[in-house]
Amino acid sequence: MRILGIDPGTGICGFGVIEVSGTKAQAVDYGVISTPPRTPLPDRLLDIYNSMHEIIEQNHPDVVSIEKLFFTKNITTGITVAEARGVILLVCKKHNLPTFEYTPNEIKKTLTGYGKADKKQMQEMVRLHLKLSAPPKPDDAADALAAAITHSLMQKYAADSHRAELTPSN
Amino acid sequence: MRILGIDPGTGICGFGVIEVSGTKAQAVDYGVISTPPRTPLPDRLLDIYNSMHEIIEQNHPDVVSIEKLFFTKNITTGITVAEARGVILLVCKKHNLPTFEYTPNEIKKTLTGYGKADKKQMQEMVRLHLKLSAPPKPDDAADALAAAITHSLMQKYAADSHRAELTPSN
Repeated sequence: MRILGIDPGTGICGFGVIEVSGTKAQAVDYGVISTPPRTPLPDRLLDIYNSMHEIIEQNHPDVVSIEKLFFTKNITTGITVAEARGVILLVCKKHNLPTFEYTPNEIKKTLTGYGKADKKQMQEMVRLHLKLSAPPKPDDAADALAAAITHSLMQKYAADSHRAELTPSN
Repeated sequence: MRILGIDPGTGICGFGVIEVSGTKAQAVDYGVISTPPRTPLPDRLLDIYNSMHEIIEQNHPDVVSIEKLFFTKNITTGITVAEARGVILLVCKKHNLPTFEYTPNEIKKTLTGYGKADKKQMQEMVRLHLKLSAPPKPDDAADALAAAITHSLMQKYAADSHRAELTPSN
């Protein structure tokens, strides 16, 4: 299964594609969609729209895992992230790709077992999980890969607990 | 000048097209893009995307005036409105239409002179301004027409104050 992870944003939007086979996962492609500062919002959204189409056409993901908004501090940032998310979800729908959403807390907890893990701990877990020699850069690409890994682990846990239900415990 | 006003939302999105000529303004088309309750968000966004294209192709607006987010109470609603706004701004950009944004307060103040005008007062001002026999329905279409009227009045005020600057006052 190929999973496209997305860390949405209008200025910088991270993406990361992983290929999952059994218990193994490897990075296929990752990076960021970025626009220069002061680029008008509609131009940024069109750039995200076109780039998302390209990323999907080049990588052929089966599902998309996208970071869900969870406001704590900055509402203004939250609005622009939601505007980017709207465009991203639209492109996924145009490609008939199912989308799954995870909050930053869920992603941290799934990767490290701890909902308040810091950026460094997260990047190290992404590196270990994908057997990379160094943590992926930039940060937004690492966050996108973390979203993709989270979905693969959530699917695995769901399958395992389903199997556990079917196996009588003595 | 033809102005397309938009009251963004994922469940119901209002639109209203007005034609402005000198001091006269008339309604050309208005209504809502709506999706049934519990429709998944990506499906709603695709519906908004397709409907926005149709509205623009049928009405040929010169500019778009869209209600700007202004959070006071419900952040969750705010997020979904921003997701719809992202898709709407994308479609406008695809049609090379300039977009202008006004907060609900700016719209109320421009139409009624009072930033806290209620829904009924607003609808009555929309009706009077467009010389309609009854207030336009549903509410979201009236709000979209109000956004379009606001842009026409703002343009007029800007032009008038520019003329005032050029004319020496005795």
